[in-house]
Amino acid sequence: MKYETYKKLAGATLGKVKADLVFKNCKVVDVFTGEIVESAIAVKDGIILGVSKSYRGKKEIDLKGAYIAPGFIDAHLHLESTMVAPAELVATAAASGTTTFIVDPHEACNVSGADGINYILNQTEKSPANVFVMLPSCVPATNIDDNGCMFAANDMYPFIGNPRILGLGEVMDDDAVINGDPRMFAKFALFDHLVIDGHAPFLPNRMLSAYKMAGVDTDHEASSFEYALEEVRRGIHVHIREGSAAHNVDDIVSGIVRTGIDTEHFSFCTDDKHIEDILRDGHIVYNIRRSVELGLDPFKAIKMATINSAKCYGLKHLGAISPGYQADLVIFDNMKDFNIIDVYFKGKRIDRNAEIKVRKCPSSLKHTVNIGKVGPEDFALPIRSSVTHVIGMEPKQIVTNDIIEHFHKTDNFVPHDGYLKIAAVERHKNSGKIGVAVTKGYGIRGGAIASSVSHDSHNIIVIGDNDEDIAIAVNEIARVQGGYTVVENGKVFETLPLPIMGLMTDVHFKEVNEKLKVMKDKAYEMGVSDHFDPFITLSFMALTVIPELRVTPRGLYRISHSGAGFIK
Amino acid sequence: MKYETYKKLAGATLGKVKADLVFKNCKVVDVFTGEIVESAIAVKDGIILGVSKSYRGKKEIDLKGAYIAPGFIDAHLHLESTMVAPAELVATAAASGTTTFIVDPHEACNVSGADGINYILNQTEKSPANVFVMLPSCVPATNIDDNGCMFAANDMYPFIGNPRILGLGEVMDDDAVINGDPRMFAKFALFDHLVIDGHAPFLPNRMLSAYKMAGVDTDHEASSFEYALEEVRRGIHVHIREGSAAHNVDDIVSGIVRTGIDTEHFSFCTDDKHIEDILRDGHIVYNIRRSVELGLDPFKAIKMATINSAKCYGLKHLGAISPGYQADLVIFDNMKDFNIIDVYFKGKRIDRNAEIKVRKCPSSLKHTVNIGKVGPEDFALPIRSSVTHVIGMEPKQIVTNDIIEHFHKTDNFVPHDGYLKIAAVERHKNSGKIGVAVTKGYGIRGGAIASSVSHDSHNIIVIGDNDEDIAIAVNEIARVQGGYTVVENGKVFETLPLPIMGLMTDVHFKEVNEKLKVMKDKAYEMGVSDHFDPFITLSFMALTVIPELRVTPRGLYRISHSGAGFIK
Repeated sequence: MKYETYKKLAGATLGKVKADLVFKNCKVVDVFTGEIVESAIAVKDGIILGVSKSYRGKKEIDLKGAYIAPGFIDAHLHLESTMVAPAELVATAAASGTTTFIVDPHEACNVSGADGINYILNQTEKSPANVFVMLPSCVPATNIDDNGCMFAANDMYPFIGNPRILGLGEVMDDDAVINGDPRMFAKFALFDHLVIDGHAPFLPNRMLSAYKMAGVDTDHEASSFEYALEEVRRGIHVHIREGSAAHNVDDIVSGIVRTGIDTEHFSFCTDDKHIEDILRDGHIVYNIRRSVELGLDPFKAIKMATINSAKCYGLKHLGAISPGYQADLVIFDNMKDFNIIDVYFKGKRIDRNAEIKVRKCPSSLKHTVNIGKVGPEDFALPIRSSVTHVIGMEPKQIVTNDIIEHFHKTDNFVPHDGYLKIAAVERHKNSGKIGVAVTKGYGIRGGAIASSVSHDSHNIIVIGDNDEDIAIAVNEIARVQGGYTVVENGKVFETLPLPIMGLMTDVHFKEVNEKLKVMKDKAYEMGVSDHFDPFITLSFMALTVIPELRVTPRGLYRISHSGAGFIK
Repeated sequence: MKYETYKKLAGATLGKVKADLVFKNCKVVDVFTGEIVESAIAVKDGIILGVSKSYRGKKEIDLKGAYIAPGFIDAHLHLESTMVAPAELVATAAASGTTTFIVDPHEACNVSGADGINYILNQTEKSPANVFVMLPSCVPATNIDDNGCMFAANDMYPFIGNPRILGLGEVMDDDAVINGDPRMFAKFALFDHLVIDGHAPFLPNRMLSAYKMAGVDTDHEASSFEYALEEVRRGIHVHIREGSAAHNVDDIVSGIVRTGIDTEHFSFCTDDKHIEDILRDGHIVYNIRRSVELGLDPFKAIKMATINSAKCYGLKHLGAISPGYQADLVIFDNMKDFNIIDVYFKGKRIDRNAEIKVRKCPSSLKHTVNIGKVGPEDFALPIRSSVTHVIGMEPKQIVTNDIIEHFHKTDNFVPHDGYLKIAAVERHKNSGKIGVAVTKGYGIRGGAIASSVSHDSHNIIVIGDNDEDIAIAVNEIARVQGGYTVVENGKVFETLPLPIMGLMTDVHFKEVNEKLKVMKDKAYEMGVSDHFDPFITLSFMALTVIPELRVTPRGLYRISHSGAGFIK
């Protein structure tokens, strides 16, 4: 602790003067010993002074026997994936007990590079929570991506030393690691003393060892206990993910309970959790509650949500109730339901009803859709071969199938019988690159849907059954500088602007949500299969790391076990 | 991992080429999960590649079902306190399974400052073990000490960044911490990002909180479970000590077993363990074995000796059997007796019978006794008051009593009836300071014993029943530039030179030990009480932090609960 800070606090710690705030009559969850200590907690200037019944405070709060634990930590998430402004997501999740967020601004970086990262840092600076950043490791995601910015080791260098930067973000390019790509190791060298997050959903035995040996410290992609066990045995710290899309707590925690293995190398994360889900179930507290339901010792669950993550990321002042630690505290009723009574950040109560202030976004980040006007002719798709590869969209999945069809040769394929056109329009550098392909399974009739959210490069993705509406949709996205749009019979039905890098809104969640509901209903009315979220499913159709067919601005791309490449 | 290293190892990790060495058919102690994994371990260039039965090696060793664990870590010890050269102690302990030593060269620093620390670093550079250093935090120990060197924050600065320096050594000056002494906080600021070791045997409640809040991370002075519990509840990592003098395993581990508290924040250390004890019982393995006898889960015990300490000190490559970790391995027969079969350091077997090479010590460190010739008259002790304070030496203790006697007034006190003279002679700067006092309980007759080992300043301490022999003993210590000596009836009976800073020998243990035995026998024959080790007890008689009376070169010093000061 700094000398000046110690001098300010020591009198109160030693009991010579009153603390600012004392929580009396509480059951303190001690994450160091795994005990409940019935005591009082003294706080001054947002710092915990000590745990002792002898403390007196200028303000004293009688918790009447309630439990009090360190604020929860989300060990890995993306703030940009939930459409709302970072400040709103953080404030909402903080009110449910998550007081620390370790975020990877991968999407923002793909659009706007360092400016995108600085945006996330800046927007969350005054949030009622600690927001730390892992620097995106794979921007662009692959060498065939047309994204907004390159973010190499050199670009990372200025961030080193910033106390809010904890390390290198999820390393998705497993091949670059395992094959020893020097550019990846240049990034590893920068973060050798910090933490390197992994992203390895299915590496077998020795490849997983090589990935770990190279320097990867964590992974949040384990979806089965067996795989998580293989990772932890190698010393990889596993973040058990429970978000809006991925639900890994049940399988992994059941395995932990069944085998009784040690849990120090497990943490909790959400990865992506939408605001409506947070409002309904809570945030990291849901991972805790569900784990306890599955039979996990509640202390172990709380440790996965606090000290385990703090230690993993070297956060020496967070994740415990201990002298000198930050007074981030969660008060709840019991160790089964974990109903949150109150949350404190730096010793201040979080007011759930407080207005969430969203800082103004720099103008440059609101002008990221850089294309010329398009017309129907830009989406012409000649059929020259007797074989056409069609992107088969599968219900409730983001993997696609490579369907072989035999269409008549033509100068421009005309959608029919559920065969639609899908296109990816490069939107960062006005390169004019547009890739068009045929897809099946989505189901829209009499219109088009477009979005500027499309992983990982976030070009414009558009789908429709006629070239006119497709062109209208793309021009509409350009007009509002990013967002979602639904076009029906030559007219824009509705548009949800996401002007911040084409990813996020600058208005509040409630407003967005109402408009989004109307747009989704229209999409389903127009024939979109109810097995899909019309926009989220679309956002994965350009992602060239997931099998089997994807459309990119450079054309149709196939990913399979035997290799990957463009289809000529 | 560095790019070049990865490139060298990856082929073998991926199984494309053979490893250097494979341990087959072994029970791997997995400290991450707390399991035994029956598998094989592959090693190349001293690094663990992975754990998998599929590995093949140029050399394969069939362990026939034996257990294999990460090399043990001694979380806190002093190499200089065992008289032998650091290389010998390390090699001896390494053969019994301790492959990492976190040392505090407090004694060397008190005599020779930074040169003393560099000596320890240099002497252990090629040892078959990892030797890390915590920089001594309290040199001199107090502001009334006449030691060899000042070692302030400025002097520490050049060591920052050295990968073998892990932090700040045991902070004994609790008052300086708790009262917010800026000089202490200058040291803390230097080590904020590393580890700060504590030393707080008996701080009550809120003072312990203040001590922790200031920045202290560990303590090895807890001697009861109750106190250890108070420390761990505050987030202080407790090193459970079992050495030659202090035996804390029984009480602390019994408490852990009884209460079932979590053990992640406990480690093992020896603090001081003499070579004969290591040869008889082993080193850290003894802490493990004894803990398991007391009912501790063997996995928890091994974790206290490995990963817990590695994590505490940020040693990311040690303490586990995991890809990329250093191949420091201990092979043993079972999880109860822990009989050591073999020990590997960086993938190389430690040969217990190998000759231990002790590097040449720089000449300056062998010339640290800087005094002029003394005569009997230098030890004259006039009695001017009707009250004389006598240092009462207590059987088997290092605390002393303040005995009030009423001697006749005289120009020079003459020892009689068990009342002896004890003196401390400043030996670093030839200041001529000599403090003389009366002591009782030691028992020597017809001679004197002197030593240059006397905590923490390591001046010459001498005790005897006549001024002539006392002067001879001191001159003898000066002649050999440090050591132990026994003088009988005007003649040196025997001297054990400890020329390295007056603390350590430059010959092998066996030779020292034989001579020491002869000298101790003579001391007992001359009347020294068999409740004392003649030399070790003497070495604490100038230590001004332990109650109640001590002799220093500045005179007689009293330490009590009500305060401390010189007796005029």
